[in-house]
Amino acid sequence: MLTLDKIYHASYVLKDVIRRTELIPAPYLNKKGNIFIKPENLQLTGSFKIRGSYYKISQLSDEEKAKGVIACSAGNHAQGVALAATKNGIKSTICLPDCAPISKVEATRNYGAEICLVEGVYDDAYKRAIELRDEKGYTFIHPFDDIDVIAGQGTIGLELIDQMKNVDVVVVPIGGGGLISGVAFALKSLNPNIKVYGVQAAGAPSMKNSVEHKQIERLASVSTIADGIAVKQPGENTFEFCSQYVDGIVTVTDDEVSSAILSMLEHQKLISEGAGAVAAAAVLFDKVPVEGKNVICVVSGGNIDVNILDRVIKRGLFTSGRSALLKVELLDKPGQLVLVSKIIADLGGNVIGVHHERTNANTGVTGCWIRIDLETRNFEHISKIKSALTDAGFNILD
Amino acid sequence: MLTLDKIYHASYVLKDVIRRTELIPAPYLNKKGNIFIKPENLQLTGSFKIRGSYYKISQLSDEEKAKGVIACSAGNHAQGVALAATKNGIKSTICLPDCAPISKVEATRNYGAEICLVEGVYDDAYKRAIELRDEKGYTFIHPFDDIDVIAGQGTIGLELIDQMKNVDVVVVPIGGGGLISGVAFALKSLNPNIKVYGVQAAGAPSMKNSVEHKQIERLASVSTIADGIAVKQPGENTFEFCSQYVDGIVTVTDDEVSSAILSMLEHQKLISEGAGAVAAAAVLFDKVPVEGKNVICVVSGGNIDVNILDRVIKRGLFTSGRSALLKVELLDKPGQLVLVSKIIADLGGNVIGVHHERTNANTGVTGCWIRIDLETRNFEHISKIKSALTDAGFNILD
Repeated sequence: MLTLDKIYHASYVLKDVIRRTELIPAPYLNKKGNIFIKPENLQLTGSFKIRGSYYKISQLSDEEKAKGVIACSAGNHAQGVALAATKNGIKSTICLPDCAPISKVEATRNYGAEICLVEGVYDDAYKRAIELRDEKGYTFIHPFDDIDVIAGQGTIGLELIDQMKNVDVVVVPIGGGGLISGVAFALKSLNPNIKVYGVQAAGAPSMKNSVEHKQIERLASVSTIADGIAVKQPGENTFEFCSQYVDGIVTVTDDEVSSAILSMLEHQKLISEGAGAVAAAAVLFDKVPVEGKNVICVVSGGNIDVNILDRVIKRGLFTSGRSALLKVELLDKPGQLVLVSKIIADLGGNVIGVHHERTNANTGVTGCWIRIDLETRNFEHISKIKSALTDAGFNILD
Repeated sequence: MLTLDKIYHASYVLKDVIRRTELIPAPYLNKKGNIFIKPENLQLTGSFKIRGSYYKISQLSDEEKAKGVIACSAGNHAQGVALAATKNGIKSTICLPDCAPISKVEATRNYGAEICLVEGVYDDAYKRAIELRDEKGYTFIHPFDDIDVIAGQGTIGLELIDQMKNVDVVVVPIGGGGLISGVAFALKSLNPNIKVYGVQAAGAPSMKNSVEHKQIERLASVSTIADGIAVKQPGENTFEFCSQYVDGIVTVTDDEVSSAILSMLEHQKLISEGAGAVAAAAVLFDKVPVEGKNVICVVSGGNIDVNILDRVIKRGLFTSGRSALLKVELLDKPGQLVLVSKIIADLGGNVIGVHHERTNANTGVTGCWIRIDLETRNFEHISKIKSALTDAGFNILD
């Protein structure tokens, strides 16, 4: 059974293991409230997961510890369990699908786990983990639906109240619901007036649907940039905790998550992963009430693949007017490219790529077009450049 | 005159203004030592500069405060002075060259400064700032060569000793030398056994040259990704402090700085600007002795333009084997592109761009080539893909 005392105990057990991440003011997320973030992306292993895994593992019997633990994950849970086991001096095995990103596999191995790559997808890896549990007597560490794991995540709730006595609103990502269950239980037990909101990805609203329909529901499929919270079905415990202690669950789109990642990158100098940024996205896009309130967004993790981050930045630059793609039709005669380049340069646009092509199916026989990648200042700047090109007689195709 | 008492005083004045940024373990920077970073990129305004500006401004006479302050900068100093003045309730004017990035201009304006855009480059803006100082009686806030500014930056030294009693080595970026002067003075005054190393950009080694030649020297030009420390000439005070208190000055290249930015982004979830990352780069590339030592790298700021960050990430992905550009010669007949795509896909390469062209000056009349942008896992993965293409009879041009 989850009790406040258990969460205090977890906090005591964790005190020399984890970082007590300090609150950081985040005024740019929303000017209407007094916004702070709890940066669990700066936690060991790059996410809050170490809290729950470590506490869970520390509570195993000597016999269980001697046999070791097993988990199935391609993400933050894998790294949390691996490091928690190593710090407890016990053996861990992590099953991952063989399509898992090599960077995550290597990180998990570096924390001391034995890696078991399983051909197929997550469900295949899960099946293999259960087989190994039964064969070898390993203890299976559930990523969220376990009371000790939930108690470990709940230590964040204790820290929040310590770090901001007068907090009004706490916003927390929801995947399986382990994090928010612990945090909401701790906060509501200490001060029922604190509002706790959960945030899911619009493409994976399993807990939202389940709580609203008052029964656990399974999504047929999930699709979101926030892969860390792309969970098809809530846990039984976490469903109960969310139903009882959470004041509301909202969703955010992939574009909203990308904007939140970019905002934290620019204004807070912090990298967050998609799942880590959903609470910030909810505050940024006014999905939860913050006006005049002291608000904390839990940024739950920062383990984003750099290639994905690169795409998020590109998308963010584009949707905020700081990059543009122009397609300009030219007469096929010398000097046209010089002229276009000069117009752009004179207005302070920075050309970072040019693709120049003659005679394709979309242009006349005598025409050709160039596609120009540009660094720009804002949408107004882009308009100015387009107008100048049009004024000079060029036809802009897009 | 700089004294330890003055730095203690600055620390007292700053205690409710700035963030006391906490040390973060950074094991990935170098396994040989026990490495931590002091993340001043998480400081208000995104850099340490607020410390010096605020202390300087707080020490002005009432008459000076009534008239206001002026500074000239397109970077972190501008934002530091603007916020420090606003927090002291006085007026600030910041002169910037009109080519300054719009994001920096807006940030400075948002901190409450009056912006004076000057046509031309930095030197023109500086000239105008001095004119305005003389006309209006403003106090000019020097970015580094000022004892109160240096005392303010020195508060970082006090914090470091507080935060790590047994620190052996502290590594600090050098531009004009204000930061390292304060930090080295504080550290050496409290414990002369602590080693303090300075780091400059290889393209702007003004302090290094000056200290080595025992006289202040001016560089004809500077060129580096670390624009925040691209300073042509050290200050008179800072030259003396560096000569007396700094144990050595090393330099790092732009590629080394890019790698350090990428490493901190991936492993620490922190964004640093070029100038902010030079100390970390020096530790990453073994430019300073760290073996068996407790080492702190000061990460001085995180105000990097997102477009630049995007390029740093791209370069970093490329130099670490996680992206590749292949140029493959094809026979000009149907089905070739399908074949190449299939070989790449079968090996898990992710195609993110294709440029396909016939008949240019570098190919035969019957031939053509494609240029393929790929996401890859590492250099071994790239080799595998190249071998598979070669084995299938394709000629790789690069």
